[in-house]
Amino acid sequence: MKPVNLGILGLGTVGGGTVNVLSRNAHEITRRAGRDIRILQAAARDLGRQRICDTSNIDLTEDPHAVVDNPDIDVVIELIGGDTLAKELVLRALDNGKHVVTANKALIAVHGNEIFAKASDKGVIVAFEAAVAGGIPIIKALREGLSGNQIEWLAGIINGTGNYILTGMRDRGADFETMLAQAQQLGYAEADPAFDVEGVDAAHKLTILAAIAFGIPLQFDKCYQEGITQITQDDVVYAEELGYRIKHLGIAKRRERGIELRVHPTLIPERRLIANVDDVMNAVLVKGDAVGSTLYYGAGAGADATASAVVADIVDVVRVLTVDPENRVPHLAFQADALSNLPILPMEEVETAYYLRMHAVDRPGVLADTTRILADHGISIEAIIQKKASPGSEQVPVIMLTHRTVEGNMNQAIAAIESLESIQGSVKRIRLEHLNR
Amino acid sequence: MKPVNLGILGLGTVGGGTVNVLSRNAHEITRRAGRDIRILQAAARDLGRQRICDTSNIDLTEDPHAVVDNPDIDVVIELIGGDTLAKELVLRALDNGKHVVTANKALIAVHGNEIFAKASDKGVIVAFEAAVAGGIPIIKALREGLSGNQIEWLAGIINGTGNYILTGMRDRGADFETMLAQAQQLGYAEADPAFDVEGVDAAHKLTILAAIAFGIPLQFDKCYQEGITQITQDDVVYAEELGYRIKHLGIAKRRERGIELRVHPTLIPERRLIANVDDVMNAVLVKGDAVGSTLYYGAGAGADATASAVVADIVDVVRVLTVDPENRVPHLAFQADALSNLPILPMEEVETAYYLRMHAVDRPGVLADTTRILADHGISIEAIIQKKASPGSEQVPVIMLTHRTVEGNMNQAIAAIESLESIQGSVKRIRLEHLNR
Repeated sequence: MKPVNLGILGLGTVGGGTVNVLSRNAHEITRRAGRDIRILQAAARDLGRQRICDTSNIDLTEDPHAVVDNPDIDVVIELIGGDTLAKELVLRALDNGKHVVTANKALIAVHGNEIFAKASDKGVIVAFEAAVAGGIPIIKALREGLSGNQIEWLAGIINGTGNYILTGMRDRGADFETMLAQAQQLGYAEADPAFDVEGVDAAHKLTILAAIAFGIPLQFDKCYQEGITQITQDDVVYAEELGYRIKHLGIAKRRERGIELRVHPTLIPERRLIANVDDVMNAVLVKGDAVGSTLYYGAGAGADATASAVVADIVDVVRVLTVDPENRVPHLAFQADALSNLPILPMEEVETAYYLRMHAVDRPGVLADTTRILADHGISIEAIIQKKASPGSEQVPVIMLTHRTVEGNMNQAIAAIESLESIQGSVKRIRLEHLNR
Repeated sequence: MKPVNLGILGLGTVGGGTVNVLSRNAHEITRRAGRDIRILQAAARDLGRQRICDTSNIDLTEDPHAVVDNPDIDVVIELIGGDTLAKELVLRALDNGKHVVTANKALIAVHGNEIFAKASDKGVIVAFEAAVAGGIPIIKALREGLSGNQIEWLAGIINGTGNYILTGMRDRGADFETMLAQAQQLGYAEADPAFDVEGVDAAHKLTILAAIAFGIPLQFDKCYQEGITQITQDDVVYAEELGYRIKHLGIAKRRERGIELRVHPTLIPERRLIANVDDVMNAVLVKGDAVGSTLYYGAGAGADATASAVVADIVDVVRVLTVDPENRVPHLAFQADALSNLPILPMEEVETAYYLRMHAVDRPGVLADTTRILADHGISIEAIIQKKASPGSEQVPVIMLTHRTVEGNMNQAIAAIESLESIQGSVKRIRLEHLNR
C-alpha cells in the first residue's frame, strides 16, 4: 500500500518525541499498520533551535499554514498547544480534508464540539488520545474497550505535577511551596503553574473523559475547578492518621438528574489502588455497570509517553482512511446525533462525604455544638479527632469525617458552624470519596 | 442501518451475562454503535435448565450447528468453552463467512494460528478480548493503544482464583488447601482446579498476550508453567519480612535472542502497584519503550465483567463489517505476513532473581559453604535471613534473595548446595522480579 504522509505542527517536547518514536519504531509500527508512515513536513517556530529529534529527512518550515495546506499531506499532527493558533490550523486542516491527530487538551475541551462538527462535515477524523493522561490509552478504553457498559462514574489523577506535589508533601513532609518549586525545577510544571495547581489542566482532561463516558457534549465551562494550593501539611497528616490519602482527582459521575463534573483535592482510603499512584504518574478509575471497577495507570506526560499516544492515534487513523465515516468510532464515543442533554449539576447538588477541619476554643460543649449543627442538617459523622492545644494556645484543632451529603447542605452547616462563638476562623473542607461502588 | 444479527453458542455464566448486558444496555450500545444489535438465535446444551438471563425473544436450539449454519446470522458468539466442539463450531462459522467473537482462551492459545489463518482466508474477523483478563480491555490496549511502542515485557496477574488463594494466605494466614477449598465453595475455581493452581489457565492467557505484544505466533506448548501448589505459609511470611509479596505472574519478555514466556509464583516488591492487586482481581503491567510502565486493572472473571469484553468485541466487529480486511486491526496486532520468528527461550536461558529457602544444620560454616557455591556460579546475594531453630530441632531455615542470574546457572548452584552435607532436603526456589525497568 502507498505510504501515509504526515505533517507535524510543533517540534517541542511532544513533537520531538513523536519524531523520535516514529523513527525508532518504524519497523514495529509498519509491521502493525501494514503500510509505511512517513513525516513529509514539519513546522516549528524557530528553525535555528536545537531539537531532541533528528529532522534531516523532514521538510522543515516556519510557516504552519504551509503544512495544513500541503496537498501531499494526509494527516496533520497538531502539537503546538494553546487554543488560538492551534484552533485556526486544525480547522483549516479539516477544511482541506485532512485528518488530524492532536495532543491538545485545552483545544478539545474548549473547542471540541465545533471541531468535531466540522470534521464530521468533511468526513475526516480528529484523534486526541494524547490529550488525556499522556501515554495511557484511556480514551480508547472508554470509547471502545468499555462500549458495552453504562459508565457510572470515573475518577482520575490526571495532573502529574499536582500528584508529584501531593506525594512529596506526604512522603517527605515538605510544604506546598517547596514541592511546587521542586516541580518547576524538574520541568514538570506548566509554564503557568496555575494550570496545574488550580485545576485547569485537570478540568480540561476531565471534560473530555466525561463527554466520552456519558455521551454528552464537551462542557468545560461547567466543570467545577478547585486546586491544591490550600492543602497544608496538617491536612496530609490528619488524613493519614484517619487512613486516607489526599489526591487531586477529577470526578465525573452519572446521577439521575444530571452529571457531576468536578476537580478538587479528595481524601481517598489508603488501601485503594489509586491512592497508591504516586509522583508524576497518572491513573483513571472507571466504574462500568457490567465491568465493575477498572483502573488504567501510566505516565501522564513526557516526550516519549505522550508520543506513544500520538503514534497510536496515527496508526488508528491510517487504518480507517478508507472506511465509510459512519462506521468509524464516533469522536465522542456516541453517535453525534445521539448525544444526551443530561445537564451538568451545579456544585450545590453534588453528593460527597467530607473532611472538615476547624479551630475550636478549648472548653466543654464545643463538640456538642458542632455535631448538633451537623445532625440538624442530616449529616452523620464517621470520625472525630480532637487534638491537644499547642502550648500557649487556647485553640484545639478538631477534624471530622462525615458521611455523604449534598454540597448545598454542607455549605449551610459550615456557615452555621462558623457562626459559633467557640469556632475561630473558617472551617476547612476537603471532599472525601470511598470510590468503592 | 440494518440491525446486526448475533447467534450465541452457550448460555452459561458468560453467555447469560452477555444476553443480560446486551439487553440492559441496548440503548447505550446503540447510541455508540450507530445500529441495533440483536440476538437472533442461541444454542444451549439443555433448554430445560434455568438461566440467569431472559431468553423470551431469542430463538433457542439445542443444536449449535443450527446457529453457525443460520444464513441470517452475521456474527457468532462462541461462549461454550473447551477446545473440541468449540473449535469445530468456530471453524464452521468462519467457513460460512461469519465473524466470530469468543471468550475462549484455551481455543485461541492452542488453535489460534489455525483459526486466524482461516479467518483471513475468508475475510472475516475473530475477536477475543474476553479470553484474557475478563473485562479489562487489555487486548485492545496492547494491540491498538500501544501500537507505537516496542513492547519490552509484560507481567500479569491473570488468574483470579490463584490470586484469591495467595491473598488469603497473606491476609488471613490460611494455608493453600484451606484457601483452595474456599475458592471452590465461592465458585471461583474452574471445574478442574489444576487449570487455576497449576498455571494452565494463566499460560493460555499469557500465550495470547505475548503473541500480540511481540508479533509472534501463538506457542502455548512452549510456555513454562508452574502453579502455586508449592507455596507455603512460611514462604509468604518470609517474603513479607523481606518487603515482598508472592503473586502468581505470567511474564513475557523480549530478550535479544528470544522471548521469555513463563508462568510461576513470583516475589515482587510490596510497593509496586501490582503487588497490591488482591483477591480475584486481575492486572497486567506492560512496559513499552515509549510509554514506559502502564498497568490495566479490573475483574478477570464473572458473568457481567466478561460480557463487557464480549460486547465491546461485538461493537468493534459491527463497526468494521464493511471495512476492507487489509485495513482492519490484525488478529495478532501485527500483519499476518510480518510475524517474527524470534524463538521462545528455554527456561534454562531465562534471567531472573531468586528467593531460596533451605534447611541447614545449625553449626558454623554452613552459610560460608552455601554463599561460596553461589559466588562460584557468579550469583550475588541481595539478602540473607537465618532463623532460629525450632525447639528440639537441629535445623535452621535459611532464606536468601539473589540478584539476577540465568536459570541454568541457578539450577547448577542449587544442585551443588543440595549436595552439601549441612543442607537437609531440597532447596526451595521462587523467582523474584523487581518489575521496574
